Amino acid sequence: MSKARLEAFSDGVIAILITIMVLELKVPQGATLQVLRPLLPIALSYVLSFVNIGIYWNNHHHMLHTAERVNGKILWANLHLLFWLSLIPFTTGWMGENHAAALPTSVYGLVLFCAAIAYTILQKAIITMQGSRSKLAAAVGKDKKAKFSATLYAAAIPIAFVYSWVSIGIYVFVALIWLVPDRRIEKTLIDA
Amino acid sequence: MSKARLEAFSDGVIAILITIMVLELKVPQGATLQVLRPLLPIALSYVLSFVNIGIYWNNHHHMLHTAERVNGKILWANLHLLFWLSLIPFTTGWMGENHAAALPTSVYGLVLFCAAIAYTILQKAIITMQGSRSKLAAAVGKDKKAKFSATLYAAAIPIAFVYSWVSIGIYVFVALIWLVPDRRIEKTLIDA
Amino acid sequence: MSKARLEAFSDGVIAILITIMVLELKVPQGATLQVLRPLLPIALSYVLSFVNIGIYWNNHHHMLHTAERVNGKILWANLHLLFWLSLIPFTTGWMGENHAAALPTSVYGLVLFCAAIAYTILQKAIITMQGSRSKLAAAVGKDKKAKFSATLYAAAIPIAFVYSWVSIGIYVFVALIWLVPDRRIEKTLIDA
Amino acid sequence: MSKARLEAFSDGVIAILITIMVLELKVPQGATLQVLRPLLPIALSYVLSFVNIGIYWNNHHHMLHTAERVNGKILWANLHLLFWLSLIPFTTGWMGENHAAALPTSVYGLVLFCAAIAYTILQKAIITMQGSRSKLAAAVGKDKKAKFSATLYAAAIPIAFVYSWVSIGIYVFVALIWLVPDRRIEKTLIDA
Repeated sequence: MSKARLEAFSDGVIAILITIMVLELKVPQGATLQVLRPLLPIALSYVLSFVNIGIYWNNHHHMLHTAERVNGKILWANLHLLFWLSLIPFTTGWMGENHAAALPTSVYGLVLFCAAIAYTILQKAIITMQGSRSKLAAAVGKDKKAKFSATLYAAAIPIAFVYSWVSIGIYVFVALIWLVPDRRIEKTLIDA
Repeated sequence: MSKARLEAFSDGVIAILITIMVLELKVPQGATLQVLRPLLPIALSYVLSFVNIGIYWNNHHHMLHTAERVNGKILWANLHLLFWLSLIPFTTGWMGENHAAALPTSVYGLVLFCAAIAYTILQKAIITMQGSRSKLAAAVGKDKKAKFSATLYAAAIPIAFVYSWVSIGIYVFVALIWLVPDRRIEKTLIDA
Repeated sequence: MSKARLEAFSDGVIAILITIMVLELKVPQGATLQVLRPLLPIALSYVLSFVNIGIYWNNHHHMLHTAERVNGKILWANLHLLFWLSLIPFTTGWMGENHAAALPTSVYGLVLFCAAIAYTILQKAIITMQGSRSKLAAAVGKDKKAKFSATLYAAAIPIAFVYSWVSIGIYVFVALIWLVPDRRIEKTLIDA
Repeated sequence: MSKARLEAFSDGVIAILITIMVLELKVPQGATLQVLRPLLPIALSYVLSFVNIGIYWNNHHHMLHTAERVNGKILWANLHLLFWLSLIPFTTGWMGENHAAALPTSVYGLVLFCAAIAYTILQKAIITMQGSRSKLAAAVGKDKKAKFSATLYAAAIPIAFVYSWVSIGIYVFVALIWLVPDRRIEKTLIDA
């Protein structure tokens, strides 16, 4: 089965998610700086989520690039990932409107954690299909970076109830270490 | 006529539908668990509809895969299917916000039933175009699974007025039997 | 210049327009038939506009199929068409919510008229680029059907202020004569 | 790495942005000309932004056309451009609803300025990847038009606080000089 439609569908969903978030920035009444101020935390959480979804799109792009074909299992693993990503606009708005209050900040981390797990499941499904000479398996290796990120997200979920800004700091930190796209895959593909 | 644009357009519409539903999850006032509670039934109906639309996308993907070309009749049969799918976000929100009340639950089943019929019409249009050696006809056979699902949906429509939770149970059950993508088509294509 | 991105972009915009309209069907308070009744005219105008946008997508599909390449003029003629189509959700909601009142019904016709003109301009731009042996020119001929439709829309605009239901009748009638995709193009292409 | 998904994803985001704006045109209560009047400035700012996003899509189309492959840096430079474009619907609505008041008009220019800079960064990333025989570098030359536009936007930002209509005039003027797609690239490609 060809991967073209899987990529097109994922691109569509991710494109919608990344743009739908900005709808949370409701046009305010009035034309002064004061009316913009309450939008600032929402705008900042929008930037963070824009980068996070951008990272998923980039890595998804790299990962699918190594796949030649897809099967039913991969289709569903991909939909599962898209499901968790689809909750990001909601949690972004909730966290932004409540100025990083404990519960919304924790739920934001929970959704990122589930998305990370879903990404790993999708990766495994592709590797399983590619078999022993999997290009993707060679590229990601032990996938320390992904495990490290998921651990940090898992830590941020309870931490949010004590110091919510530390959790925010973790989300920003994980985003920064991923901003560089997965050069391991790029490298392996070039070497191959 | 090439099927590329039909697939691209369908992917676009389905991608929008599957993500638009999450907009029904309005960001609540306040940052406590209490404000999340009223969202729970909406969130659960969102999950059910996400899976249902995902199933349609998967099966659509498999079905179109067997088609080499499309004609005007297929274009319209496809738009007809997309029309019924486009009503799912509305009925999902209505059913979720009314905690599975009789009428919304019944209407939810009605839309799913119409979508199932529209899917069958599209399938017939493709088989007719492919002629006597239709790959798709060989793959679906008597299509007992689709007939069974449509019958269950038809039953759920009146049942909702007596025991709405039985209808919900039927929707979940039908979703589960379809979660496995149409392996018959995959098999036939591999054998061919 | 390849036409692939023009098609992809148009598919994206049209897919969004055809699904965005359904957002006008706001989930009502309450779970009774009474709360659905005020939605009925909006739902009916949604069906009409769904068919109209579907017709544009189908004909756009057929028309672009005859084009091998595109130029800057075609890109802008296409954006011009998409602009008028993008106003359809607004006029659909306005007409539906006001039960076919004079002004909204007239404006609905005005937007359809402008879209029809924009479609003709795009068609001319493609024919001009294809030159004297234009497949598209051969297929559409004198394009009586398009001229007939535009004339009917032009008539419906003032008529709406006297008998708005006659204008609605005209919109439905024009939709019906186009529901059959442009077989002339299909035929010419098959003959060629 | 292939550029197909980059184009598809950008097309998706830009298609959503260009259609999401029209959602700011809320269906008014009542069916008279009076209820349309307050929508007029919003509609006009919608037209301006539709043209601006259309220009970006057209130039993006031309620019990517010269690229054969993309790398991680280009992916992120592209996402950076899409980020600034994603703020256009918000600033469009804000400027339109406040009848070109000073601050919203200035912010509108700021977002356009940032988008212009982001476009230049993306262009540089592509030229760097193409190396010394870059088709794109040959096509854009010293890129006087882009520099001129960015300078005008930069001027419009402070001017808006004194004469906001002059800034609007600048936005319209810059849109007009770009309405003609980048024929330099078309020419160079044809000559090549």
